Amino acid sequence: MGEVSIYKPKPISGYPEWLPEFRAVELAWLDSIRSVFESYGYCSIETPAVEEIQVLTSKGESADKEIYCISRLNGEPSTELGLHYDLTVPFARYVAQYYGQLDFPFKRYQIQKVWRGERPQEGRFREFYQCDVDVVNLDSLPLFFDVEIPKIMHAALSALPLGPLDIKLSNRKILEGFLQGLEVKNPIPVIRAIDKLEKIGQEGVAKILNQTLHLEQTKLCLELAEINQDDFSKRVTDLGISNETLTLGLEELSQVFSELSALDQKSFSIDLSIARGFDYYSGTIFEAKLKNFPQFSTIAAGGRYDHLANSFTKTNLPGIGMSIGLTRIFSKMLAEGKIEAKAKAPTQVLIAWLDQNQKHEIEQTASKLRERGFKVEVYFALDKLKKQIRYADKKGIPYILFPANSENPKDEIKNMQSGEQFSINLDNWQI
Amino acid sequence: MGEVSIYKPKPISGYPEWLPEFRAVELAWLDSIRSVFESYGYCSIETPAVEEIQVLTSKGESADKEIYCISRLNGEPSTELGLHYDLTVPFARYVAQYYGQLDFPFKRYQIQKVWRGERPQEGRFREFYQCDVDVVNLDSLPLFFDVEIPKIMHAALSALPLGPLDIKLSNRKILEGFLQGLEVKNPIPVIRAIDKLEKIGQEGVAKILNQTLHLEQTKLCLELAEINQDDFSKRVTDLGISNETLTLGLEELSQVFSELSALDQKSFSIDLSIARGFDYYSGTIFEAKLKNFPQFSTIAAGGRYDHLANSFTKTNLPGIGMSIGLTRIFSKMLAEGKIEAKAKAPTQVLIAWLDQNQKHEIEQTASKLRERGFKVEVYFALDKLKKQIRYADKKGIPYILFPANSENPKDEIKNMQSGEQFSINLDNWQI
Repeated sequence: MGEVSIYKPKPISGYPEWLPEFRAVELAWLDSIRSVFESYGYCSIETPAVEEIQVLTSKGESADKEIYCISRLNGEPSTELGLHYDLTVPFARYVAQYYGQLDFPFKRYQIQKVWRGERPQEGRFREFYQCDVDVVNLDSLPLFFDVEIPKIMHAALSALPLGPLDIKLSNRKILEGFLQGLEVKNPIPVIRAIDKLEKIGQEGVAKILNQTLHLEQTKLCLELAEINQDDFSKRVTDLGISNETLTLGLEELSQVFSELSALDQKSFSIDLSIARGFDYYSGTIFEAKLKNFPQFSTIAAGGRYDHLANSFTKTNLPGIGMSIGLTRIFSKMLAEGKIEAKAKAPTQVLIAWLDQNQKHEIEQTASKLRERGFKVEVYFALDKLKKQIRYADKKGIPYILFPANSENPKDEIKNMQSGEQFSINLDNWQI
Repeated sequence: MGEVSIYKPKPISGYPEWLPEFRAVELAWLDSIRSVFESYGYCSIETPAVEEIQVLTSKGESADKEIYCISRLNGEPSTELGLHYDLTVPFARYVAQYYGQLDFPFKRYQIQKVWRGERPQEGRFREFYQCDVDVVNLDSLPLFFDVEIPKIMHAALSALPLGPLDIKLSNRKILEGFLQGLEVKNPIPVIRAIDKLEKIGQEGVAKILNQTLHLEQTKLCLELAEINQDDFSKRVTDLGISNETLTLGLEELSQVFSELSALDQKSFSIDLSIARGFDYYSGTIFEAKLKNFPQFSTIAAGGRYDHLANSFTKTNLPGIGMSIGLTRIFSKMLAEGKIEAKAKAPTQVLIAWLDQNQKHEIEQTASKLRERGFKVEVYFALDKLKKQIRYADKKGIPYILFPANSENPKDEIKNMQSGEQFSINLDNWQI
């Protein structure tokens, strides 16, 4: 090949990638989350990265979402296809498209990357993993799942080394019923404003609310949002509003909270200020944060929706689901020095190669160990023993096998950590 | 929510997705491949879906590859970033970018989706999984890996239900040395023409070759490409060409073939007609096909390259690697009816819910079984027993647990396949 001009590649802002020793941790986290999802009987689906733009914009939030569209480098620019910005819209589309072939309640998980054209900043990426669990049913969905979904989120997050969790629960019907009682005509902007409480504070929210509400209405909304105690039902009732929607919301939240706090009193709490930005939530809503990093954004969230797929089908498909922002959590923990690198290779045993004539024999030994489930490397050259040991050390390989030879009739294993060396029987040796 | 207009989503040509019972099979295949890769000590890396266009076009094949670029839906069209069309270029970029932090020989696997703006046809997709294994080293890489990489490919493919394999081996140095001996000035177009032998036949290739070669040169090239016997060295030498490159190629291929055929005589064979289209191959090359579907395209392939990363760094990083076209194989097997659907859910045990007051108790039973590694669903409503059994049946759940209650003091398990029902001890029950 001729002279090649060198292009020094630049890291692309917002598109994270990790060195092998940290990718190994990310992979272990992904495995762990998947295993929790499956332990509750949720099936895997995977949808293409690409959807029709008309599907992606069906929720009418295209501008917010900053969708990426794709077009051929040497072709006409196109706005027909784009990359999914979450896994909820593709899931709704999938269920609408195949619902005759699915069994209900349909319980699925989906662990995939999503793309958003956001301005990169701490904890925000343009490509990142989401880990979603949802269940949808035809016509109606039991409250059973309003307990199960936060429970799965709790189990999945508890299995990761994140420290104590702070999972806040509310119910959209409380806010909706309350606003109905206050005779607020257009509740959506009010809900969106309340959702910003943590970001912009009471005064900031009051300022927005006062644009459309009376002072007394604003005051009551903020009083409602302050409620975060176990006796929330009584406190809400004391605010003097009462109607069917509100009562139903309080009843649902009481039952869900009672079952979840029986499971883990420390992690779950009530917080009527959580509202979730999306219009489609209609019942239980919840958000998780890390107690050790209270300033850090929500790491997982979800809720119940009654009409998610109704852009795509007339069939009524109520559901509840949640999403874990894995990349956001992982990169935060990495930045905080809370992630211990794994070994640079998954190898458990390195077989030393010390004799030219032994190549065939040690390959057979390697095969035998692989069949027994071990991860095995054969050293790749007839290098000095010292060099082979240094290789194992650098890569973090915990054991070296010295195969039997003319000088030593027994297979020997060296434990790299303790330095011990002892003879073994390959047929039954265990780590 | 108000009236919503319904948009019926269309399947997007070239972007496959599967129903849960087939996705479960795909996932099992992905797990199996990963487990083989790790059993040889290769580490996982994952690169973003997106690369700089300048990185993607560094091999000068942008037009062929039909790269997708991405741009914001509501922004200016951009040709700065695109989706990767393979995992080799991102790997080369990754190694060049981080090589000070990597340990060599660097052995990595990468299982990700890639995107190509190809015209969809049988076995061609616009989004598909590739499963790659590569090893690169600084300055030189032992022939050891020319045996290991095809061996890993063989192990990974053999672990899938694909029937007998046909893995053909050659070495680029043979063809290059031969063309050098024939005094062919520009070997690349000749290699590319020979690569088309299977597609367009001897006459087709001869027609292309005759445009730049003498008749005698064309004849010898075609004679060389016909060689597919174990005594290939003698047959090549008999063609009367001899030089260092050719001799080295024959020696390397002899050693690689001898070790691989000792492993599995039936799967590996010599075929000097295989050439691989890419310019960067420089030694051992190999391609796998399915013996049961000889007309079907190559399912996996790879080879040695000496200069892959030299668009990005001056450091010499020779390597060898291979790629399995998983989606292509999977969809072919699916189309041929060779894939048996799995259950629609991963659930192993459904716990029946027959008594309102038992909810808390059966949730605890479920937790206990999950801790023991079982995949467990609690039935979601107080439905009639018949309905609960029908649910397990439809979803392919193999066991139903009837928890002990006032009428029956023992936990009982129903085996859905045999219909048997027996009492169990939850602390030590095994499937």
